Amino acid sequence: MRIDVKAAADLLKQHDKILILAHENPDGDTLGCAYALCRALHLLGKQSRVACADKTPHIFDYIPRGVEIQEFEEEFIVSVDVASLSLLGDEEYAAQYSDRINLCIDHHGSNSMAAEYICMEEPEAAACAETVLLIIRELGAEIDEIIARCIYVGITTDTGCFRYSNTTSRSLRMAADMVDVGLNTGRINKLTFETRTKTYTALETLALSSMRMFFEGKCAIIQITRDMYGTSGSDESETHPITAIPRQIEGVLVGATIKEAKDGSTYKISVRTNAPANAATICAKMGGGGHKRAAGCALKGRTLEQVYETLVGAIGEELAEALKEAGE
Amino acid sequence: MRIDVKAAADLLKQHDKILILAHENPDGDTLGCAYALCRALHLLGKQSRVACADKTPHIFDYIPRGVEIQEFEEEFIVSVDVASLSLLGDEEYAAQYSDRINLCIDHHGSNSMAAEYICMEEPEAAACAETVLLIIRELGAEIDEIIARCIYVGITTDTGCFRYSNTTSRSLRMAADMVDVGLNTGRINKLTFETRTKTYTALETLALSSMRMFFEGKCAIIQITRDMYGTSGSDESETHPITAIPRQIEGVLVGATIKEAKDGSTYKISVRTNAPANAATICAKMGGGGHKRAAGCALKGRTLEQVYETLVGAIGEELAEALKEAGE
Repeated sequence: MRIDVKAAADLLKQHDKILILAHENPDGDTLGCAYALCRALHLLGKQSRVACADKTPHIFDYIPRGVEIQEFEEEFIVSVDVASLSLLGDEEYAAQYSDRINLCIDHHGSNSMAAEYICMEEPEAAACAETVLLIIRELGAEIDEIIARCIYVGITTDTGCFRYSNTTSRSLRMAADMVDVGLNTGRINKLTFETRTKTYTALETLALSSMRMFFEGKCAIIQITRDMYGTSGSDESETHPITAIPRQIEGVLVGATIKEAKDGSTYKISVRTNAPANAATICAKMGGGGHKRAAGCALKGRTLEQVYETLVGAIGEELAEALKEAGE
Repeated sequence: MRIDVKAAADLLKQHDKILILAHENPDGDTLGCAYALCRALHLLGKQSRVACADKTPHIFDYIPRGVEIQEFEEEFIVSVDVASLSLLGDEEYAAQYSDRINLCIDHHGSNSMAAEYICMEEPEAAACAETVLLIIRELGAEIDEIIARCIYVGITTDTGCFRYSNTTSRSLRMAADMVDVGLNTGRINKLTFETRTKTYTALETLALSSMRMFFEGKCAIIQITRDMYGTSGSDESETHPITAIPRQIEGVLVGATIKEAKDGSTYKISVRTNAPANAATICAKMGGGGHKRAAGCALKGRTLEQVYETLVGAIGEELAEALKEAGE
């Protein structure tokens, strides 16, 4: 059942012992949402804790800071920024929450979560953290430095620090409100956007070396293999910023990253586009989904070359359609 | 004489045939200020035009768009974002405006302009465009898409799209107001911040592959050789963003880039530091200079290995001193 932010806040007010679920490979938005909400519930005297299948990436270490860790038998389960059950973690991990999620707070148009209540705004919020901030305001919790930090990180992560086209004036004003609480945003932004680990730098160099261009430079694809993780000492948790690079290249409408998964037979694909190409359309052709400008899918049991063929085929179809529609 | 934004607006109201001066090597802030103010004056029925010693850089081509070019004998001269007369252009160019500037609108604490009136806010605005927006509001001009675009570019250029520590909640709110006028900020930001040429990407990959670490990871040095220019198709004009990378690596206090000059026997060195290391001190040891966080020097007639030795030696001395002073 779809509900608005006020109804979501009312539900939270009526419950206690609230478990908050973030998605796997957590980013700043899911973690920011989870810890902001958890902190707000604590401030209201409720018990709450955050769960995530994966560890908090090192660069986001500061997000949970100051949020108390509480143990209890959960009575109400909330997911934040999780578009589908499979994004919670591997099959076994996700299965334990199947049919048990009471409230899903999200901002993905493609949301397919089977939750009791789903809270999503129309039009889509740039970051789920925007919706969570509205809910926290409805809850009447004081926005302290911890909540402000979490919301700020959520908004900046999903908008590329306000660079992406999903940024609205509301994103900027909400961030301004968080700054007024007394955040040191320069420090937070340096950690989030301007710090590279040595292992990340090594992995980026390897990944960029693999870049292949297709369709007269309109498509750029890079790959991240398990070998590259081995050579660089990096792992999947550091791949997020790399996936933004192919789309940044002049003339590129579709940038894609192929990541070899641990099992050696699954390839996770991340697609980023510039208008008029639609990333969700491309990934839907391969069983995935997402947003217009950023989407993903996974291809199983194929060789890397077969993955290239499938991906390049899907991109080619979308480019042809999108450019035709745009009259180019 | 120091005046506030209201007095600056009053002065502009009282005059016509207004020439607006931007600084040399113009950036988004000086150009944004100049064209926003020029457009506002046009909307109020006044004659105004912008002058700059240098051409508008390619990536800022969109700033002047829609601002009419008017010819007239100037009766009132305004400078925007110009901290001193020498920053207008070369000696001959600057000399023509010496003692002729009526109103200087700026945001540099170090301002040394000999203008009749100086309008600067306390505390310093993150971007001069913030002060110009306040003046335009005082002028009562309608904020149209052209003005909004110019102000937005000014603010985002000087705050690194809201990443730098100079960003205030006012910067974010003013940007939000500009977005509400109907800007396509995604497109503007992409042009300003997210466009990589293919040649730049190739050069970055090569340069990063050359990275060497010293002093237990406190120093990272990369090199850019003439061979790399050849292989990537890039040239020195694209190296600026690369020199920022070594310092961004976690744990690095001194990041340096060695660039082989055209003559094959000169090596230009760019040094960036994090506190407490001082880039100016390092470069002074090698006959150069600059700021605390960014400095440079050139070493002539040596082999690349000798350059590494000299540079690593200078960095080692500064690291030892700086860490000792910092009590680490």
